[in-house]
Amino acid sequence: MRRQNLRVVGKPLPRVDAGDKVTGKSVFVADVSLPGMLHAKLVRCPDSHARIVRIDLSRAEKLPGVKATITGKDLPTRRDCSTMAVEVVRYAGQPVAAVAADDPRIAEEAARLVRVEYEVLPAVVDPMEALKPGAPVVWPDGKRQKDHRGELLPPNVTGYSHFVHGDVERGFKESDFIFEDTFVTQTVHQGYLETHGYIAEADRATGKITLWTSTQSQFNLRGALLGMFRLAASRLRVVGLSIGGGFGGKSEVTMEPVCIVLAQKTGRPVKLILTREEDMTACTARGKQVIELKTGVKKDGRLVARRARIVGDGGAYGYASLMTVLVHGPYRIPNQESEGLNVATHTVAAGAHRAPGAPQALFACESQMDIIAGKLGMDAVEIRRKNLVNEGDFVAGALKMPRNGWRKALEEAADKSGWAQRKRRRNRGMGIACGPWDGATNISSAYVILDSDGTASVISGAVDVSGTDTSFAQITAETLGIRMEDVTVSLGDTDSTPYVDGSWGSRVTYAMGTVVKRAAEQVRKQVLGLAAKQLGEKAEDLEIVEGTIKSRKRPGKKMQLRELAQQALWEGGPLTGQASLSSLPSQPALAVQVAEVEVDRETGAVAVLKLTNAQDVGYAINPMSVEGQMEGAALTGMGYGLMEEYVYEEGPAAGWRLLNPSFLDYRLPTSLDMPEIESVIVEEPTDTGPFGVKGVGEPPVIPTAAAIANAIEDAVGVRIKELPITRERVLRAMQDAERDG
Amino acid sequence: MRRQNLRVVGKPLPRVDAGDKVTGKSVFVADVSLPGMLHAKLVRCPDSHARIVRIDLSRAEKLPGVKATITGKDLPTRRDCSTMAVEVVRYAGQPVAAVAADDPRIAEEAARLVRVEYEVLPAVVDPMEALKPGAPVVWPDGKRQKDHRGELLPPNVTGYSHFVHGDVERGFKESDFIFEDTFVTQTVHQGYLETHGYIAEADRATGKITLWTSTQSQFNLRGALLGMFRLAASRLRVVGLSIGGGFGGKSEVTMEPVCIVLAQKTGRPVKLILTREEDMTACTARGKQVIELKTGVKKDGRLVARRARIVGDGGAYGYASLMTVLVHGPYRIPNQESEGLNVATHTVAAGAHRAPGAPQALFACESQMDIIAGKLGMDAVEIRRKNLVNEGDFVAGALKMPRNGWRKALEEAADKSGWAQRKRRRNRGMGIACGPWDGATNISSAYVILDSDGTASVISGAVDVSGTDTSFAQITAETLGIRMEDVTVSLGDTDSTPYVDGSWGSRVTYAMGTVVKRAAEQVRKQVLGLAAKQLGEKAEDLEIVEGTIKSRKRPGKKMQLRELAQQALWEGGPLTGQASLSSLPSQPALAVQVAEVEVDRETGAVAVLKLTNAQDVGYAINPMSVEGQMEGAALTGMGYGLMEEYVYEEGPAAGWRLLNPSFLDYRLPTSLDMPEIESVIVEEPTDTGPFGVKGVGEPPVIPTAAAIANAIEDAVGVRIKELPITRERVLRAMQDAERDG
Repeated sequence: MRRQNLRVVGKPLPRVDAGDKVTGKSVFVADVSLPGMLHAKLVRCPDSHARIVRIDLSRAEKLPGVKATITGKDLPTRRDCSTMAVEVVRYAGQPVAAVAADDPRIAEEAARLVRVEYEVLPAVVDPMEALKPGAPVVWPDGKRQKDHRGELLPPNVTGYSHFVHGDVERGFKESDFIFEDTFVTQTVHQGYLETHGYIAEADRATGKITLWTSTQSQFNLRGALLGMFRLAASRLRVVGLSIGGGFGGKSEVTMEPVCIVLAQKTGRPVKLILTREEDMTACTARGKQVIELKTGVKKDGRLVARRARIVGDGGAYGYASLMTVLVHGPYRIPNQESEGLNVATHTVAAGAHRAPGAPQALFACESQMDIIAGKLGMDAVEIRRKNLVNEGDFVAGALKMPRNGWRKALEEAADKSGWAQRKRRRNRGMGIACGPWDGATNISSAYVILDSDGTASVISGAVDVSGTDTSFAQITAETLGIRMEDVTVSLGDTDSTPYVDGSWGSRVTYAMGTVVKRAAEQVRKQVLGLAAKQLGEKAEDLEIVEGTIKSRKRPGKKMQLRELAQQALWEGGPLTGQASLSSLPSQPALAVQVAEVEVDRETGAVAVLKLTNAQDVGYAINPMSVEGQMEGAALTGMGYGLMEEYVYEEGPAAGWRLLNPSFLDYRLPTSLDMPEIESVIVEEPTDTGPFGVKGVGEPPVIPTAAAIANAIEDAVGVRIKELPITRERVLRAMQDAERDG
Repeated sequence: MRRQNLRVVGKPLPRVDAGDKVTGKSVFVADVSLPGMLHAKLVRCPDSHARIVRIDLSRAEKLPGVKATITGKDLPTRRDCSTMAVEVVRYAGQPVAAVAADDPRIAEEAARLVRVEYEVLPAVVDPMEALKPGAPVVWPDGKRQKDHRGELLPPNVTGYSHFVHGDVERGFKESDFIFEDTFVTQTVHQGYLETHGYIAEADRATGKITLWTSTQSQFNLRGALLGMFRLAASRLRVVGLSIGGGFGGKSEVTMEPVCIVLAQKTGRPVKLILTREEDMTACTARGKQVIELKTGVKKDGRLVARRARIVGDGGAYGYASLMTVLVHGPYRIPNQESEGLNVATHTVAAGAHRAPGAPQALFACESQMDIIAGKLGMDAVEIRRKNLVNEGDFVAGALKMPRNGWRKALEEAADKSGWAQRKRRRNRGMGIACGPWDGATNISSAYVILDSDGTASVISGAVDVSGTDTSFAQITAETLGIRMEDVTVSLGDTDSTPYVDGSWGSRVTYAMGTVVKRAAEQVRKQVLGLAAKQLGEKAEDLEIVEGTIKSRKRPGKKMQLRELAQQALWEGGPLTGQASLSSLPSQPALAVQVAEVEVDRETGAVAVLKLTNAQDVGYAINPMSVEGQMEGAALTGMGYGLMEEYVYEEGPAAGWRLLNPSFLDYRLPTSLDMPEIESVIVEEPTDTGPFGVKGVGEPPVIPTAAAIANAIEDAVGVRIKELPITRERVLRAMQDAERDG
């Protein structure tokens, strides 16, 4: 289709940073060393809930090479915060003090010399336990929440949301069948390879702070720190370095304040690189959720009503992603009601993780869809086909569904997986699930500069977490009619680029790509205007093809972009473009996955044989990059479905500690676990994204766990409603089924 | 005057980088260390002219820790260039090879182990000697130059320029007196404190080169290197760091190619910091000039005609700054003719130095003005007053003189120095001289960004060599109605900012200040547009005062810029401005200085007691900064007049070597040599500069040497026509005068 007219966009080109990444040239925060730099180390409480009785820093301070020590009282917050406890520790691993020394080994030794006396308190590390009367209360002085009926909620509920559309009670009455199921998801880590790290420097003369770090959003991080330190924006510069993965986990303030305060105290740069254990225990995680669904359906499979209740573990200091809208799935349900409870527990703060809240919500929604289909004797594809929203439908009572490729994605997933033709084989099964995702747009801005030889630069403050710099280069090259290798994409820091929102929400190629394209179009317009004068042609008759500006009407009329760029310097100065936007229309995306599994009846082990992954991407600027996103997401979804989980040892003796804060004991899927993945890119271009794109990074992580659960039921007839689907759970379910059957 | 209406501009505010500079936080290239970085060392020829017979690198290469060696043949030029000789060495100290090693000491040792066999050739280190028949020829295969009459010039003349206006022969006929004098100036160093240094890194996968260095122009340096290495602009990133002085000396390619080639060979970053000796012998210098003036005047002192001939030492690889126009001074001379000869010698390349060519030309012009005044019995101020160009005069046959403060500067210098009231005191004297300077404008571009809390950022690719970042902050703060401390000024590298010409030619505040102001005005316009809607006022009735947007008509109508900036993010995205320009009208400046000296008749030593320094600056954005420029320049001018000189030991035995390549033997004036300086800022605002500015950095270095020479004659009656005016020269002149008298 349109791809045929494009030269750079739509091509599967290698990432612009590929060379730097594979040769180790990319600069991560751990690589940076500044003159006179100190090294920080955290002193952390091993227990999940404890009162700090006394902190004795004296032995640490006497150690030669130690330059500063701080406790939570030195932070500008002056009260307990996730970064550091002042009075009460609220999760195991929470820092209570920190040291800065000339050398990382001295800092480590000094941290060991800090003596902290604790009074260990009873803790609660499970959100359902936390709701029970008599459970330890995480925030005894917190404001009590009420539900939508005005009834007081249990004291550990620290946030509540409610969504209603239609009339669920009437809907249930109109239903032929009612299904009620409870699904449980676990706490998992975002799984980025590079742990959090920071270098802070504070200028004593001006007070200006510079922070080098690994972040998905220089500006949002700066905003949070400005509030905490009460600074003007001009007084804090955040410099985002290469990022070794974020997946939502590098979106919030973690230990930056520790580095900043130590830098302020010492007047020297201070570096802190978290160990894996520190990172897993003291940053953020995707929190456990318990989702109850009550769904009413007609005999023919039409969904009529759904009530959902999501209990989300917010950890001590975080907020659960409660997807009260998305829990209703990509379906037309005339009557919807849902409530979300954010429950505080004595665990690590809940935070964003790739498609926050959606893998949980859709694990529930899509598992129940198969339960319903099974009961009604319907095909799993057919029931989805019947209920899927159409263009023009009002979704969640608000958004009018734009033109989309959702149905095509569903059909492609079924088609490419051989759904209709599948044969029954012992212990093997197939399962399908959908992953809808609205995608963010948010504040975006970018510059495009035409250089003096007709090459170009793109500059913005948006960190590349997923290959978006490559898309920017393609968009700019396409718009200016030059080669991709002649485009340089640079990340500017917060002092040198306009505000942009973070690299999250699958928003970057969609919204940032839009401003890049607009800025490049401004440059193109200026180029063609100047060329038109020189060539005696109309600007609208000119095109730029591989660096040559030529007339479409008179082929002989042409000039090199290179020459024009040089001349432009002397005829008004460099040509540049700049564009900003606040938001774009929402363009919801859908990933549909079919999992094919084989279950080992002896061990309960589930082998994923194949994942067929069809996704409505609007338009793929770089199909190779899109496939990479789809494959990576599916593998993450598989890890979520089968392997990953934060395991807490419960009970006062153990202090409710996290048992597996390492990538040895916490098992992420590796390339050895990678199933065959078939990615099917479905293109139904949007009207609003550059070249028709919509966000692609998050949708394909959403359906995988449900698809696998559905496939397991197809294979061995057991329905697992709790993640991860470990072999123990499968084995037990099979044993129970055998016993009951 | 207008100053009263301004809040930030026009105020003597401390430099924005003052804190960083005095606390040592500014990052210079020597401060930068990259992982895996190698250290380079040059192997240099001690002789001024030699043929390379053989270079034996084997012993150096065997030294453990040595990672690469190169000779001139490895440079992309493939023939002798100033950076490195391939076959023939043409100045003492020219590199012939280089090594890169793990450690600077290993590199130094390895450089010593390189054995080079030379055939020493006869050299010529003085441009007048180089013109003589039979002189050694620097470029035997070079194209022979012809003069304007078509006559062949001596073989060492490698460049020729000719300027004519009116008819000098007729002018001489109309003159009452003819004066013929020859003036000689010496070779001096620019005197920057930070020697040249570079770190180059070459990405082996992409070929992309990054160069961190101390440069006055990231883009011009990049341009020169792109040509040499045949690269697209997107393949070379130049990162200008803090600069420890430039004064024209950091405008050209010096040893960058050595670092780049070593980085390409090793795949590792390579650092090279020149020693003072290397810097003085192998970079650039202000070359010696011999200036012959023949001037015809009327009895009443009116200048009628001048013929000038400037012989400039270009060194082996450089080009002398031949000021064939400016040698006629700031005067109406109806008939002018001049020629300039660039002469190659076996010395360091001539290059730019603060007001290139002008201190030489004006030393001649302004010395002769006093000779003429003396002969005619006229007052030195009076003869200048009589001949000074007026507004509307055509200068140099082309430029129509705009409105200016030249006469005022002349009168102020006379007035403030007490010229008219001066009394004769033994061995004391006063001298006056003028320093006219056109000032450059050139390609400029800048961004201004309004941040989310109403603070602002300025970004450009223009290196701050003289406090210009402070002016940018003032201009932006004034335009946006915010405090200067709420403006951040950032230097972007060549990948992230549009092209700008170098920080030279006194152009930055004038031309760059213009684009900064225009960009800030764009932001202001958007701000007032949004505010007008919110306040229900007309944009033109609004003003921004100290962060508050308010109506001039209805004082109650107001809002905070901070709030508006935040809202703007959600109503279209960040507000930014960008401006570019190619050139602005020339706004010639004039510095007039009066030197008061005392001469020691025993030793010939000249003590400068006071320098009165009046300068037409258009408008002083920051009077403190302007005074700093004026004082610094006057001291540089005094060093040029009295102290500094490259001394060559001539003759084949010595190899014509430079005898004083260190700041011990080459005496720069220090703060101990500082005379009393009275700076008089004359403001006659221009129509074209921001707030009326014109360039200020270069003019005040121009007249000092002549003013001192004139004062010496006033004091002890001897006319010294050769710089520097050493005590030996003064003593000998006094002895000659006594003997002759």
